Amino acid sequence: MDINGDRVEVAEHPPQLDLYQPLLFDKDSEKAASLALDLNEPSAIGEGNHGINHLAMIGGKVSPIESLDYELIENDLFKQDWRSKKPLETLQYVIVKWTFVFLVGLLTGLVAFGINMAVENVAGLKFVYTLNFMTSQRFALAFLVYAGVNSILVVLAALLCVYVGPSAAGSGIPEVKAYLNGVDTPNVFSFQTLIVKILGSIGSVAGGLIVGKEGPLVHVGACIASILGQGGSVRYGMTWKWLRYLKNDRDRRDLVTCGAAAGVAAAFRAPVGGVLFALEEVTSWWRGPLLWRTFFTTAVVAVVLRTGIVWCKQGHCGLSGEGGLIIFDVSGNPPDSGGNPDLNSGLQDLLPVIILGVVGGVLGSLFNQINGTIIMSSKRWLKKKGKCAKIAQAIVVALITSVCSFGLPWLATCQPCPTTIGFPDEPKCPTHGRTPNFKAFHCPANTYNDLAGLFFNTNDDTIRNLFSKGTNGEFAFSSLLIYLVTAYSLALLTYGIAVPSGLFVPAILCGATYGRIMGMAMRIVYGPGSMDEGIYALLGAASFLGGSMRMTVSLCIILLELTNNLSLLPLIMLVLLVSKTVGDGFNDAVYQLHVQIKDIPFLEEHPLSFMQQLTARDAITGPLVWFSGIERVGTILEVLRSTKHNGFPVIDNTFNNGKDERQQPIFCGLVLRSHLLVLLKKKQFIESREWGHNNLPQVHGCLSSAEFAKPGSGKGVKIHDIHLDIGEEEMFLDLHPITNTSPYTVVETMSLAKAYILFRQLGLRHLCVMPKSSEGQPILGLLTRHDFMANYLLNLHPSLKQSNHKKIHAYPSFRSPSQP
Amino acid sequence: MDINGDRVEVAEHPPQLDLYQPLLFDKDSEKAASLALDLNEPSAIGEGNHGINHLAMIGGKVSPIESLDYELIENDLFKQDWRSKKPLETLQYVIVKWTFVFLVGLLTGLVAFGINMAVENVAGLKFVYTLNFMTSQRFALAFLVYAGVNSILVVLAALLCVYVGPSAAGSGIPEVKAYLNGVDTPNVFSFQTLIVKILGSIGSVAGGLIVGKEGPLVHVGACIASILGQGGSVRYGMTWKWLRYLKNDRDRRDLVTCGAAAGVAAAFRAPVGGVLFALEEVTSWWRGPLLWRTFFTTAVVAVVLRTGIVWCKQGHCGLSGEGGLIIFDVSGNPPDSGGNPDLNSGLQDLLPVIILGVVGGVLGSLFNQINGTIIMSSKRWLKKKGKCAKIAQAIVVALITSVCSFGLPWLATCQPCPTTIGFPDEPKCPTHGRTPNFKAFHCPANTYNDLAGLFFNTNDDTIRNLFSKGTNGEFAFSSLLIYLVTAYSLALLTYGIAVPSGLFVPAILCGATYGRIMGMAMRIVYGPGSMDEGIYALLGAASFLGGSMRMTVSLCIILLELTNNLSLLPLIMLVLLVSKTVGDGFNDAVYQLHVQIKDIPFLEEHPLSFMQQLTARDAITGPLVWFSGIERVGTILEVLRSTKHNGFPVIDNTFNNGKDERQQPIFCGLVLRSHLLVLLKKKQFIESREWGHNNLPQVHGCLSSAEFAKPGSGKGVKIHDIHLDIGEEEMFLDLHPITNTSPYTVVETMSLAKAYILFRQLGLRHLCVMPKSSEGQPILGLLTRHDFMANYLLNLHPSLKQSNHKKIHAYPSFRSPSQP
Repeated sequence: MDINGDRVEVAEHPPQLDLYQPLLFDKDSEKAASLALDLNEPSAIGEGNHGINHLAMIGGKVSPIESLDYELIENDLFKQDWRSKKPLETLQYVIVKWTFVFLVGLLTGLVAFGINMAVENVAGLKFVYTLNFMTSQRFALAFLVYAGVNSILVVLAALLCVYVGPSAAGSGIPEVKAYLNGVDTPNVFSFQTLIVKILGSIGSVAGGLIVGKEGPLVHVGACIASILGQGGSVRYGMTWKWLRYLKNDRDRRDLVTCGAAAGVAAAFRAPVGGVLFALEEVTSWWRGPLLWRTFFTTAVVAVVLRTGIVWCKQGHCGLSGEGGLIIFDVSGNPPDSGGNPDLNSGLQDLLPVIILGVVGGVLGSLFNQINGTIIMSSKRWLKKKGKCAKIAQAIVVALITSVCSFGLPWLATCQPCPTTIGFPDEPKCPTHGRTPNFKAFHCPANTYNDLAGLFFNTNDDTIRNLFSKGTNGEFAFSSLLIYLVTAYSLALLTYGIAVPSGLFVPAILCGATYGRIMGMAMRIVYGPGSMDEGIYALLGAASFLGGSMRMTVSLCIILLELTNNLSLLPLIMLVLLVSKTVGDGFNDAVYQLHVQIKDIPFLEEHPLSFMQQLTARDAITGPLVWFSGIERVGTILEVLRSTKHNGFPVIDNTFNNGKDERQQPIFCGLVLRSHLLVLLKKKQFIESREWGHNNLPQVHGCLSSAEFAKPGSGKGVKIHDIHLDIGEEEMFLDLHPITNTSPYTVVETMSLAKAYILFRQLGLRHLCVMPKSSEGQPILGLLTRHDFMANYLLNLHPSLKQSNHKKIHAYPSFRSPSQP
Repeated sequence: MDINGDRVEVAEHPPQLDLYQPLLFDKDSEKAASLALDLNEPSAIGEGNHGINHLAMIGGKVSPIESLDYELIENDLFKQDWRSKKPLETLQYVIVKWTFVFLVGLLTGLVAFGINMAVENVAGLKFVYTLNFMTSQRFALAFLVYAGVNSILVVLAALLCVYVGPSAAGSGIPEVKAYLNGVDTPNVFSFQTLIVKILGSIGSVAGGLIVGKEGPLVHVGACIASILGQGGSVRYGMTWKWLRYLKNDRDRRDLVTCGAAAGVAAAFRAPVGGVLFALEEVTSWWRGPLLWRTFFTTAVVAVVLRTGIVWCKQGHCGLSGEGGLIIFDVSGNPPDSGGNPDLNSGLQDLLPVIILGVVGGVLGSLFNQINGTIIMSSKRWLKKKGKCAKIAQAIVVALITSVCSFGLPWLATCQPCPTTIGFPDEPKCPTHGRTPNFKAFHCPANTYNDLAGLFFNTNDDTIRNLFSKGTNGEFAFSSLLIYLVTAYSLALLTYGIAVPSGLFVPAILCGATYGRIMGMAMRIVYGPGSMDEGIYALLGAASFLGGSMRMTVSLCIILLELTNNLSLLPLIMLVLLVSKTVGDGFNDAVYQLHVQIKDIPFLEEHPLSFMQQLTARDAITGPLVWFSGIERVGTILEVLRSTKHNGFPVIDNTFNNGKDERQQPIFCGLVLRSHLLVLLKKKQFIESREWGHNNLPQVHGCLSSAEFAKPGSGKGVKIHDIHLDIGEEEMFLDLHPITNTSPYTVVETMSLAKAYILFRQLGLRHLCVMPKSSEGQPILGLLTRHDFMANYLLNLHPSLKQSNHKKIHAYPSFRSPSQP
């Protein structure tokens, strides 16, 4: 073994002289070029060597990404701070935290309400004008107005997304997931993104696209939370002292989690569903107190929305105050006008429900697959053609959607108005205005166009139509089939273009449509005693959502809160169980798929199986870059300039107090690049190594942990902000006060799968690998998020490529006895 | 520093010669007597030295406790196994897992249904006979029958609990929490405990005590899950091959989590509430897939209960089929007969709701405090007096309860029957049979005794009465007050006696009563436009539950599922937020308090603040006991006999291949006591150290990882099962195949708070402390659950006793800048 030799060599060469001590694996220096590297800027050395780049698609834009610091950096400054903490400060912190959580709920609720109002009014006006032309039989003009308004709205949304806030394209949920997994990227939650997301979402939804505002609302909630969590802004003079408490990634993560929960709660008026959505889908780390805090946020959202609805009922909301309730609220349907599924329907409903689940699983996973393929193949094309192509793509999709929604209803045969309608308030038939049911479209008096009721409405109204109870037979089988095929195809095309676009609504639209078809079929099989078509529509929506998004409890609760009918619980549970199981058999959940498409280095909950065959040492590939406890300033500068590493071990082996010649090195801990930069900028240098040892208190006294607080994304000190003269470069810097003496470590023989679990569960950025033997250096290397990525590891160990790479979450701990 | 010297000494003395190498801290050998000790048998050496014993109250019995092995033991055998794993085995494992999850749901649902039927029928018969005597004016006889039946039922429950299954006393939720925190204890989930819990629960609830069957049902669910998870039974010939997959603590933990969720789901017919209860209150570790699995379990429970209710409606259930619905189901109330709180009541309801929250917080935390004091003070007395005292205590409580519930209604003035009753099915007034409302008791015709409607019912019926809507004014203020005081006092007395007793029902009873009082007050203030008293009762129940149990989301969902009325959501959220906040200001949640009372070494989510001031090294107190990779059998035996340690480091330093005299020791990993015992029992010994090195494959080939699978609680090989002759003791054992080469480690400078987080988050049993320097032994010591207990650490470092020991969960990461 070479370790012995290395050790001696290291001990003889003081580290400040030759910087890159080859420690292990130094044979293939080609591979070793970029090691222990954190995810950093795109120009990182060695890009391509691992097959992993440091760039990811954020929204519609390729951005550099970095890891977040969730670990508590326990250096001397922090400890000193901790000891001198006053109870008043804890109180201040608690007050700030809860105030911000409250604000997140309040603002998200208000924004959601505003988006909803805007969509309802803009789309309402559009329909009013179009219908005016239609009633006067000027159909061509009507189409021009309809298609024109749609295109303009969508183009505006696309322009904003392409030129102002590229991070705002898409649903935003993959980006929120990535952030909460520890992946930081500039601008993903910036103020620009927020504004573009809000306006773009209004444009794309009011523009008639098959998209929802639910996913975007999650992003909006996260943006609001993240902006609040920046700890003020020096530029705008908002530097309130209390805000300093939020200047760390841990509190920001908690706030963003609350924001995501608030977004879902606002989108569906489902406070509990929001909490569970955050828990089940969005977050990677969950702490007990978060349940309580997200719950509070969503409660605030619920109250805001309720107040808004009351206000709207008084007629302040223009077209929406009259037309629909805010967001969904299907409880306005007559209670139990159809068969109440609780007790009177027995086992006969189980079979159709299971069939719905299977259909949902198949169609949902197919949706994921095709949508992924479309995005992947258009990605290269769009990269070549540039920004204009994105705008053109949006226009084309908007026009196709307009043509379909205006043209296809002409295929439907006009149906006679029902003579008895189950509704207590007896809606007119046919209607010409905004009322969603029984659209006249081109049909003569006393008949209605059922397909127009699906196509020629806002998506929310279409869903309300599909979910409505007591309306069995309102839609013809052929109409539902045409709508299903069209909506499914349009949804596939639309999700991925450069506008804010949610996936919930398309999924609900498709699912509810085939659910209703199933309901019609069941009415033929079981006669009029079967469940209402509206309930089948709800179950169908659940099945498609389950098949595509693979959530369970949160979807169930959201749908229950949406419909306000708890008696449906067992059936919704069953349908979700079936559709998720079927979908899982085919591919990953849609958001997970998009995380992969976007090249985000996401740490999933379970390690891949081949990691069991590697040890922590196998993932280390290059020379360790480290500092002495008291290091020459020039050396530090040089290292920071030449590498992109974000963490460096600190090793002391300079206590030459004459007793022992061959002093063993001592591992002191880790320093962060950001802390080094702050220290360099402060120029707290010392003359010599010895001076530092004798005068530590003085040096420490000048530093305050507040200066090392982590600023918001992309706001820290940069290496090119540091300007030192030659004399200063020859001085020394005492790294001890900023060295985190409590880094998490693994022993080199630790299997990589277990190291992964440690890294993922604790939300680390750096993981130190320690030697199993007492010989040589006290630390072998650093592992970062990067080193746990499958592509990187498989390039490093090509022999593992053959084996299957299933996630380890369902393996028997012990095999069958091979023993007599 | 002495480390150097130690290292040399160690290297010169092969470990098999002198067993206890003093490594660090060997100066105070007094303290060092029992170190790196796992929680083990009560006779453990050094008990009392730390101020921590290895015993805890489990149910009503003091039992020895141990830690569970949640960590994956990645030794050679495991890895070999893993590589040769066939896809079929994974499939088998998945099938077994899901079958068992299904069985847990099915059986828990059936048991819950059975308990409910039994309670309803037994209590029903009791009331029928008593009321027969009362209608014939033979009141004394009626009382004798009533009190006699109650006492007999309670005594039977107490006898079972004291003599057959002592672990079954109490609610069981603290024990389930402890198990899921990693604390193992024999018999807590045994078949005996299950039976006693079921029968005892029927006895105590039917015997009229102010206890519920909800907590016990959680324990029952956990028992069922644990029994299924034992991996079969050799004694009863149930050794089905597939069961072997469940032979590990990780899968058992998952199953028990599902069982606990199923218990809550069955108790309240609240499937989603069950999942959230498990997540929020019971479990210490939560994995994503568990959400999905518990959800499935509770769905099964919901279907079983629904089927049961349908079956009961057909009249198969005796007295309960007619009387009440199964469990609670308050949805039978007329919908919105009182004011619907959703939209028409505005801000005027906020104040009373906040007041209710405050009252609930105060009364709930007071309940925790007084109940804890009562139990602590009676503990010593009971210990002195023995088992009979427990029985006597139960009799006394049963008699007091009988006297109160029979005697106090005489204080009420008979009230005239209401002329118009809001119910659609118009109940009779007064009633004489099982019907809960408008009890006649001793009142003349056309009048009823409202206090009897509260006292002289089963608890479930009382709750239904209190929650009933459209019954404003049914209960007089004085009656409610009397009931509140009595129920509160009785609940305080009852929780803690030796019968299975749940806390939910007492909390709901008290809360609903003062909620109704508040409703009456509000009717006076706001007039008839205020909310229904039934809704106030529900809110009151929420406030007491929140104030005592401090759960949020799960309680909210349980109450919503209980009442089937989602429009109450914002109000319930608000009341829970207030009451939890108020309660948290006073003391811990009730189950947490009971965990402390029971002396369970529970690892809470957050470390205590003083741990920030200690390092991992500070928690190590004694000599490390370790083995060589190839160790003398006699040495191993001696160590296993003389210590109670459950994990031992394996250190290799015997590769004397002539090159280097002073070979550095290598840390190989950890072996478990249980694995050593299996190896010793198999007698796979080798002749000499050298033989082992040359013939490793042969040795390995004889071992199978299945033999090392962890058997059920208390079933493993014991040290006194090992019998070896002198010759065998002089042979050697190769520990490498069973050495876990992936133990989790921390560096000695790691702050104890961060080590705690690692230990707790990953669910460890042993945590290795590694040196920061390359000198000396490659491992300094082991930390176990024990070493993180506050009492132990404070005894070790008395200087820290002065500082406050708040949990670290709300501290500012950075202090105010003290810098210009």
